[in-house]
Amino acid sequence: MNNKAITSRDVDFAKWYTDVVRAAKLCDYSSVKGCTVFEPNGYAIWEKMQSVLDKKFKELGHQNVYMPMLIPENMLKKEGELVEGFAPEVAWVTQGGQKDLEERMAIRPTSETLFSDYYATHVRSYKDLPMLYNQWCSVMRWEKETRPFLRSREFLWQEGHTIHSNAEEAMKETDQMNQVYNWFFNDILAIPAISGRKTEKEKFAGAEYTLTTEALMYNGVALQSATSHYFGQKFAEAYGIKFTNKDNKDEYVYQTSWGCTTRMIGALIMVHSDDFGLVLPPRIAPRQVVIVTIGDDDKVKDLANKFNKELNDKNIISYIDNSDKSPGFKFAEAEVNGIPVRIEVGARDLANNTITIARRDTREKMQVNADIDIVSYVSELLETIQKDMYERAKIRRDKLTFEAHNLEEMENILNTQPGFIHADWCGDVECENKIKEIKGCKSRCITDEELITGKCVCCGREAKHHVIWGIQY
Amino acid sequence: MNNKAITSRDVDFAKWYTDVVRAAKLCDYSSVKGCTVFEPNGYAIWEKMQSVLDKKFKELGHQNVYMPMLIPENMLKKEGELVEGFAPEVAWVTQGGQKDLEERMAIRPTSETLFSDYYATHVRSYKDLPMLYNQWCSVMRWEKETRPFLRSREFLWQEGHTIHSNAEEAMKETDQMNQVYNWFFNDILAIPAISGRKTEKEKFAGAEYTLTTEALMYNGVALQSATSHYFGQKFAEAYGIKFTNKDNKDEYVYQTSWGCTTRMIGALIMVHSDDFGLVLPPRIAPRQVVIVTIGDDDKVKDLANKFNKELNDKNIISYIDNSDKSPGFKFAEAEVNGIPVRIEVGARDLANNTITIARRDTREKMQVNADIDIVSYVSELLETIQKDMYERAKIRRDKLTFEAHNLEEMENILNTQPGFIHADWCGDVECENKIKEIKGCKSRCITDEELITGKCVCCGREAKHHVIWGIQY
Repeated sequence: MNNKAITSRDVDFAKWYTDVVRAAKLCDYSSVKGCTVFEPNGYAIWEKMQSVLDKKFKELGHQNVYMPMLIPENMLKKEGELVEGFAPEVAWVTQGGQKDLEERMAIRPTSETLFSDYYATHVRSYKDLPMLYNQWCSVMRWEKETRPFLRSREFLWQEGHTIHSNAEEAMKETDQMNQVYNWFFNDILAIPAISGRKTEKEKFAGAEYTLTTEALMYNGVALQSATSHYFGQKFAEAYGIKFTNKDNKDEYVYQTSWGCTTRMIGALIMVHSDDFGLVLPPRIAPRQVVIVTIGDDDKVKDLANKFNKELNDKNIISYIDNSDKSPGFKFAEAEVNGIPVRIEVGARDLANNTITIARRDTREKMQVNADIDIVSYVSELLETIQKDMYERAKIRRDKLTFEAHNLEEMENILNTQPGFIHADWCGDVECENKIKEIKGCKSRCITDEELITGKCVCCGREAKHHVIWGIQY
Repeated sequence: MNNKAITSRDVDFAKWYTDVVRAAKLCDYSSVKGCTVFEPNGYAIWEKMQSVLDKKFKELGHQNVYMPMLIPENMLKKEGELVEGFAPEVAWVTQGGQKDLEERMAIRPTSETLFSDYYATHVRSYKDLPMLYNQWCSVMRWEKETRPFLRSREFLWQEGHTIHSNAEEAMKETDQMNQVYNWFFNDILAIPAISGRKTEKEKFAGAEYTLTTEALMYNGVALQSATSHYFGQKFAEAYGIKFTNKDNKDEYVYQTSWGCTTRMIGALIMVHSDDFGLVLPPRIAPRQVVIVTIGDDDKVKDLANKFNKELNDKNIISYIDNSDKSPGFKFAEAEVNGIPVRIEVGARDLANNTITIARRDTREKMQVNADIDIVSYVSELLETIQKDMYERAKIRRDKLTFEAHNLEEMENILNTQPGFIHADWCGDVECENKIKEIKGCKSRCITDEELITGKCVCCGREAKHHVIWGIQY
């Protein structure tokens, strides 16, 4: 038996995905073409993601700011590579206050230009450095397709922009923030992510290099999930961000940027969820426990209230569903919404001094003593669920991780069951392009050099890098 | 002695205001005309405002969502009054992805249209009601002037949009949210706000009525600070938001919206701050206590660390300034930034077993025993400061509250010292227009009918309302 509103994951993955999104009321298409509405259940996950990441960013010394959403065309054009990379997908404001504007303005596709423009007028001396700013906002990229959370014209994200007095410190920041994203995926989202450097072809427009966090979905398709860029002095030169160094000489700053988006919600769904709806790791679940009362016996209500209070007092986010729906309906609703733990309190069970506790991830039901220490039982269970979800996702990812030594092997894998494909590469973009011809397979990231074992998977020449490849969303 | 970078408040209020904004690094003009940058110190105040209000909204059953930032022209045009009110100040996107759009799109000036469009397709039955949604976002209005926090093309706000199955409940919601804003101004921002209904002329475009929270600045100029609107079924009819009621008949929903913006930061400054910089009420201060160490004696450092830990453990937001700036510089910086309490720990004082505690609002310094219970001393002091700031603001407001019985009296007040002016009114818009000719004085709100004592301040006819008038930002 599964949730009838949801297509089976193994029958039609794409349909399953949108079914889960709709059934769990996470987001919906809107009448504004290419844009989606983040509904309460979906937005609550984003708020939880924000709170965890924001705390970590601040612990590491970052401060939040808010820059304008519009970028005058001339300002955007100052950094050539960035413009080239983003110009095709920019939305332009050409009229304001009933007049044609003298200069059209882009809705920010990303804010390197605005931060650079700000920094240029606000940094004087090495004593002002580093400046470690971040902003939470929405950005606009005029995409042609729309897929809930994964691709839409407007999406929500966080973009960190930092400037430093030397290259070493800026590179350390780039690496540190990439590690933060890795920690967030592995420890919080229970997604075993991989990490490495993007190839020249795949790096961010205008960056010296890009570090990336990549996750593998249940169907073996990869999702670029968060990136951290080192700019060197490129933007500093284009926007004139100079400071007086310790030797009293003018120098350009060294810059980074790093970001992650609401597409992480898509990753959560496509890694963990099942045919019964959403499954959320406890650490990112906006609601961790639902208590379902069966019947309206006073003893039932009292125990439910007691549990609810005890759990919430210990920061386990719990709520009681005492609506007048049937127990079966409440169970299904809690399931489709991915509430990690369900406690069922009913008069019949209570007559035997028991209650039932169900975990969402495995759908197991446990009958336990009603006198149980609910806080310690539930906290342990939540930790177990978190750990088990990670382990299961890791086993799945490892099962979908392959090795290829030549194009034929690569083709075979991609035609049978895509996944992460380890293969050596000569470093030539032509080989990269050739591989892309196989179902759009791209380099995900360059990983440890020690892993190089042979020749380029494409041309057979000397390998320079060990690369993980995959088809992507 | 005052902070030399800051013009005196009594000499040039407008200059003083921008000086404080700049000296406290709250926000700055940007290279994007009409838009400002919210810098870390200013944005941190907004984050604090968000956290307090968001908690309250959620306690009252509201859920956060995110709607697209673009509104297709035809969707915007469905509600005639709203369009008329906002069309002159809309920014239009006409090109996207290197193509001219078939239909231009407005950057949201407010989102009634988007919420209405969403609700129309998502509400079926009275069982789905009420739907109590809110969103935190930025909006765009093509203003001609820019004043930090008070007026800029883009600003940050919160907009609540709710739909209900009956008029009574929707009106109750309108009133409740107006009361939330009042609570926020009085209890959290320490600003003695007044509240009432807007006149027909001043109400929100498309609303049946608007409730407003109005504050009076130090210079006697009023600031419309938060509003709550009752729409009746106007938008429901324009956008087709129907539900099946208990009698199984189709009915249009009853709707509200309510919002407050980053201009509240402007109010905070203009009510409380002084010639030394920012003064913040403890309940909204992102940082409540600074501990300044004088010298680098181990005893000094240890005590500072002990205080800092004890305070933060009890959720009093404290930090240590142990930078290598001079004590005088640190004191001035903490003052200009409006940190409510400053604790000075120095070797010389410690030799006598004392420390110095300074409050920002009055600039008093207290010498107290170093063995003091720092948590209870500081919590009490923070509460005292909060209360005293409110009282002082109230005395100031009352001093700037006047009564007028005819146009001459009104003119005299406005030419001498503006403020809140109580005066009866016949209800005729022509009288309202005539009063506006005096320095742009507008009705702030209609208040208790019992206060009516005489004739219309303008025409001398029978008064229908008691109104508070004032010049506004």
